[in-house]
Amino acid sequence: MSTFASDNASGVHPEILAALAAANAGHQPSYGRDDYTGRLQDVFRAHFGGAARGYPVLNGTGANVVALQAASDRWGAVICADTAHIHVDECGAPEKMAGLKLLVLPTGHGKLTVEDIRREARGFDDEHRARPQVVSLTQSTELGTVYTPAEIAEIAEFAHGHDMHVHVDGARLANAAAHLGVPLRAFTTDAGVDIVSFGGTKNGMLLGEAVVVLNPRLNHGMDYLRKSSMQLYSKMRYVSAQFLALLEGDLWLRNATHANAMATRLAGQVRDLPSLEIGHPVQANAVFVRLPEPALADLHEQFSFSDWSTGEARWMTSFDTTTKDVDQFAKAVHAALTR
Amino acid sequence: MSTFASDNASGVHPEILAALAAANAGHQPSYGRDDYTGRLQDVFRAHFGGAARGYPVLNGTGANVVALQAASDRWGAVICADTAHIHVDECGAPEKMAGLKLLVLPTGHGKLTVEDIRREARGFDDEHRARPQVVSLTQSTELGTVYTPAEIAEIAEFAHGHDMHVHVDGARLANAAAHLGVPLRAFTTDAGVDIVSFGGTKNGMLLGEAVVVLNPRLNHGMDYLRKSSMQLYSKMRYVSAQFLALLEGDLWLRNATHANAMATRLAGQVRDLPSLEIGHPVQANAVFVRLPEPALADLHEQFSFSDWSTGEARWMTSFDTTTKDVDQFAKAVHAALTR
Amino acid sequence: MSTFASDNASGVHPEILAALAAANAGHQPSYGRDDYTGRLQDVFRAHFGGAARGYPVLNGTGANVVALQAASDRWGAVICADTAHIHVDECGAPEKMAGLKLLVLPTGHGKLTVEDIRREARGFDDEHRARPQVVSLTQSTELGTVYTPAEIAEIAEFAHGHDMHVHVDGARLANAAAHLGVPLRAFTTDAGVDIVSFGGTKNGMLLGEAVVVLNPRLNHGMDYLRKSSMQLYSKMRYVSAQFLALLEGDLWLRNATHANAMATRLAGQVRDLPSLEIGHPVQANAVFVRLPEPALADLHEQFSFSDWSTGEARWMTSFDTTTKDVDQFAKAVHAALTR
Amino acid sequence: MSTFASDNASGVHPEILAALAAANAGHQPSYGRDDYTGRLQDVFRAHFGGAARGYPVLNGTGANVVALQAASDRWGAVICADTAHIHVDECGAPEKMAGLKLLVLPTGHGKLTVEDIRREARGFDDEHRARPQVVSLTQSTELGTVYTPAEIAEIAEFAHGHDMHVHVDGARLANAAAHLGVPLRAFTTDAGVDIVSFGGTKNGMLLGEAVVVLNPRLNHGMDYLRKSSMQLYSKMRYVSAQFLALLEGDLWLRNATHANAMATRLAGQVRDLPSLEIGHPVQANAVFVRLPEPALADLHEQFSFSDWSTGEARWMTSFDTTTKDVDQFAKAVHAALTR
Repeated sequence: MSTFASDNASGVHPEILAALAAANAGHQPSYGRDDYTGRLQDVFRAHFGGAARGYPVLNGTGANVVALQAASDRWGAVICADTAHIHVDECGAPEKMAGLKLLVLPTGHGKLTVEDIRREARGFDDEHRARPQVVSLTQSTELGTVYTPAEIAEIAEFAHGHDMHVHVDGARLANAAAHLGVPLRAFTTDAGVDIVSFGGTKNGMLLGEAVVVLNPRLNHGMDYLRKSSMQLYSKMRYVSAQFLALLEGDLWLRNATHANAMATRLAGQVRDLPSLEIGHPVQANAVFVRLPEPALADLHEQFSFSDWSTGEARWMTSFDTTTKDVDQFAKAVHAALTR
Repeated sequence: MSTFASDNASGVHPEILAALAAANAGHQPSYGRDDYTGRLQDVFRAHFGGAARGYPVLNGTGANVVALQAASDRWGAVICADTAHIHVDECGAPEKMAGLKLLVLPTGHGKLTVEDIRREARGFDDEHRARPQVVSLTQSTELGTVYTPAEIAEIAEFAHGHDMHVHVDGARLANAAAHLGVPLRAFTTDAGVDIVSFGGTKNGMLLGEAVVVLNPRLNHGMDYLRKSSMQLYSKMRYVSAQFLALLEGDLWLRNATHANAMATRLAGQVRDLPSLEIGHPVQANAVFVRLPEPALADLHEQFSFSDWSTGEARWMTSFDTTTKDVDQFAKAVHAALTR
Repeated sequence: MSTFASDNASGVHPEILAALAAANAGHQPSYGRDDYTGRLQDVFRAHFGGAARGYPVLNGTGANVVALQAASDRWGAVICADTAHIHVDECGAPEKMAGLKLLVLPTGHGKLTVEDIRREARGFDDEHRARPQVVSLTQSTELGTVYTPAEIAEIAEFAHGHDMHVHVDGARLANAAAHLGVPLRAFTTDAGVDIVSFGGTKNGMLLGEAVVVLNPRLNHGMDYLRKSSMQLYSKMRYVSAQFLALLEGDLWLRNATHANAMATRLAGQVRDLPSLEIGHPVQANAVFVRLPEPALADLHEQFSFSDWSTGEARWMTSFDTTTKDVDQFAKAVHAALTR
Repeated sequence: MSTFASDNASGVHPEILAALAAANAGHQPSYGRDDYTGRLQDVFRAHFGGAARGYPVLNGTGANVVALQAASDRWGAVICADTAHIHVDECGAPEKMAGLKLLVLPTGHGKLTVEDIRREARGFDDEHRARPQVVSLTQSTELGTVYTPAEIAEIAEFAHGHDMHVHVDGARLANAAAHLGVPLRAFTTDAGVDIVSFGGTKNGMLLGEAVVVLNPRLNHGMDYLRKSSMQLYSKMRYVSAQFLALLEGDLWLRNATHANAMATRLAGQVRDLPSLEIGHPVQANAVFVRLPEPALADLHEQFSFSDWSTGEARWMTSFDTTTKDVDQFAKAVHAALTR
């Protein structure tokens, strides 16, 4: 059965798998000079606007580290939330591989505000302080919440006013679009975002993310950054073919919409339980809850899910979570809380 | 038709693709705690001995950078050939991501000897010199040649006598085994090698390499090094399932043997041509040749292959190169040289 | 006249200058094999115990970055206060030069407690999290407060219980000893500290700090770390001769005691002023105050001092601050507040 | 007595020491906002032209690592001689601290030519190869030879034609000027050099080097690079005051001229000895010789000098080497060779 551990515990969507098989004919130039990667640029432009350019990479940490390097000088610092994947889940890769200093801020529900950012957006001409050059947001956030286009636009305006770029960690960007009901560009390109880590793996791909450069100045050196950051895939057609399958039609949106709906369904079924508290608005495909220790232990014996560093349990849904999975799980939650 | 550009221009072997599809059932824990990755350890032990432990990673540059970090301190240097992939083909990733200093030596046919290594194996207690801590060999080499087990053992003995580890960049390790007609462990574990970058991509996988630790002391911190080096794949079952398909049976050897045979066939068909010179012994799946500029230009118009930094043309064969591909290409070479 | 800007705005103590001149006779081996550096080891042992070993370096940032590397693996993280110099005043050198991830905690008066540290001392075997390997304390702190020996011992016991080392940034270690009235080893070696950045510059030297290794295991590779971190001084006799002048007698303690007394005197003269608030216990050589904006502006016109990132004004005293300097400044504060 | 070990085994010139004492009056703003550092810019402009800007740093390795970062992107490589200090004597600091890849070339007498450089000046748009962005020359070289202004100009023209900057490691720049009999700018600014590591320590200072930026575009971020590279000195007036004493008058030239003359005198006294071979033209303050092992051992017992990695003995002279030192040493060489 399905688990609620993570959207990367799920498998590969059948349409993606079919695309892999279809791409497996004959030889293709390696390292991105293949036909699939060529076509992929049109797809990224369709979603993110005519100036967009996508660079397929291997995993989410790689996408973030490449993107943040592109958006900063050697002496730069990155402002982010204390829940950000780049801070809590990448083993220090931004610092260790790219020398990036993170300036970390606590947030309400994983979302930064201009007021938050302002606390670290200072000392710009003080050589004793690594210069803040990037604001990194996660959309949807690690806590399952979603920035509105206006919220991102306000942050971008503030950031640009202080010579900072805006990076979006979009490992779950599709889930945000599904929640907001707007095109991807509405809360990226059109909101002033400079560079995006666009996630495919958690949305049904076997593997593959892309750094999507929206501010053309950040294309400078990107090919080198991707390669020196160990994120250049030799048989790139197989990442690009997956992205084509995901993004040429509406598979990306179908998958995300379904995953979100499953989280909403789950939240709806447990929301009114006494002694269970939902920690954050359920806007994407995660439900964060607090519940008594014995019930938690009981559930852990039956299902796979994570205890988050926030002290909450995290229940993730995925493109392949079924209503039956959800109902069965919700039923077990009820049982655990009434035992 | 097939090309002679690179063994990563070829596609995915059908048995590998089938294994991917077969692995696509239900949820599996991510990041390597899945069933496939568990079984994979047995396979690595079968090939490399009971102390071996494999860590799947994403690409060859990543495998090398992770392995070299595991084998050195922060102040270490790595002795390698001037043809080594880590020196000429990784955009400086070893230096940029891991701070490794390379001590680079010219070689005859891409193979280091103890005499070569001795030139840089000095100054071990001089803080002004990054301490040589690793000797990195490529097997089979970037020039299509193969170290014998005895040659590697001699190097390993020398290295260990100077407190250095031995790393093997084995992006084409299978091709070496096929040439030598011995098990993988004969020229790695049994020869004293400490750590291997084991390649799957060029031997028919869609994607995937593994750092195989043979000297158990080098397991220390490996999980962290893999993650912080952006080489940890979330849906790891899909790399591991490929490795199982490759290594549980003899697919790895069939693929490599065939690729080698195609290179030998090609070399045999052109070897006696006047004004064509084969640059290095053809032992694995590459043929390096010098031929007159007009013939070279003529061939480039018809086929895809590389002009190497050695000044030679490089013709690579692959698991899916056919005898027809070879014969057709050899015929074109004949024609180009007699025009 | 004297300023209250920083203890590094002051000059060089005459006894130090005399020692420099006295060391200027003939040739001496460079890079630390000179007579002065040899003698210096006895001095460090006298202050820090028989297992101590000192490595002169060039500046405080260098001392910290070298020491933290010695105390951690490539995958390590460092727990520190949000006021720590390594976090706020080194332009990201720990991250940029050594790849160290900082885990930053808010504190009361610049001092970490075990309770604080516990919040980040977790996830030790989770490869997604850079492994906490060092707790870094500043003594005396950037806010002019001082840890007691018992406080440090408690932290060290906790840290060691979690396989973490304890580093002390001691740019103003002498001021702490002067405040506590105990030998340097009482709150370092004897409290379980593993490695110290020992400051000379702010205590009257022209230039020079030392990494003092108390836990002998951390000597491993130190010579290399110092050199590769660009902190090895060729004419080292001139740093060592200064340290001898400072530490063989009681100059270090006289200087620190005087500087502390001047801060205490200043605090005493302004403490009772209405609308002036002293932010932190005045234990070393700094007074942090909040006072109304017009008074602040008034004082800035007459004296040099810093507006700290805490929102407070920072008034530093030094070995060469005179009672007249203090009285004159205090008088001006009075005047500014009553204007 | 004097040694022939290194020009950093010598002490501090009395005029420099006097300048240190004279600078020791009252407080001065730290980190370079002092009066001395302000005046220093005029001095650098006088020597290097109106666009020059100097950044005092702490040591030679630091100067080089800061300068090379300023001259390259994150993905850059540096072409240098195999005798370059950055390659053989800095413990890998360029790689370890700044992620720079070195492309190392053998040379005749420590001097690169355009023909040499051309071998690595290729693959500029190939992401698999770290992009060559800097040519680093040493003047005078580690082998005691000196580039002519025309030789440097030719290299600079070639480098600029390939979008590469020219860095000069000038730890002994004064010795080159003394040999050539031209102003410093004749073979730096006027020859097209972009950035210089200017050495003070080996020319009689206690400590201090400066990165001198000649191409104004390379000033971008320099303050940050110096600080994050741990090369910002708090009591900077004491480095700047030394530079003023060295460079405002002709002390720099007197010192270098004398040191050179002592090397020439030494070479003259031993040149005709049978079984002694001088390895390189004696143009600066070093004499490299090959002589029989027994004579070498004999001399090592009496005098301090280095056995170089080239297999030669290196005899360095300094500003404080006397004719008596030289004559006595030469006499000992004669005796050792006739024993």
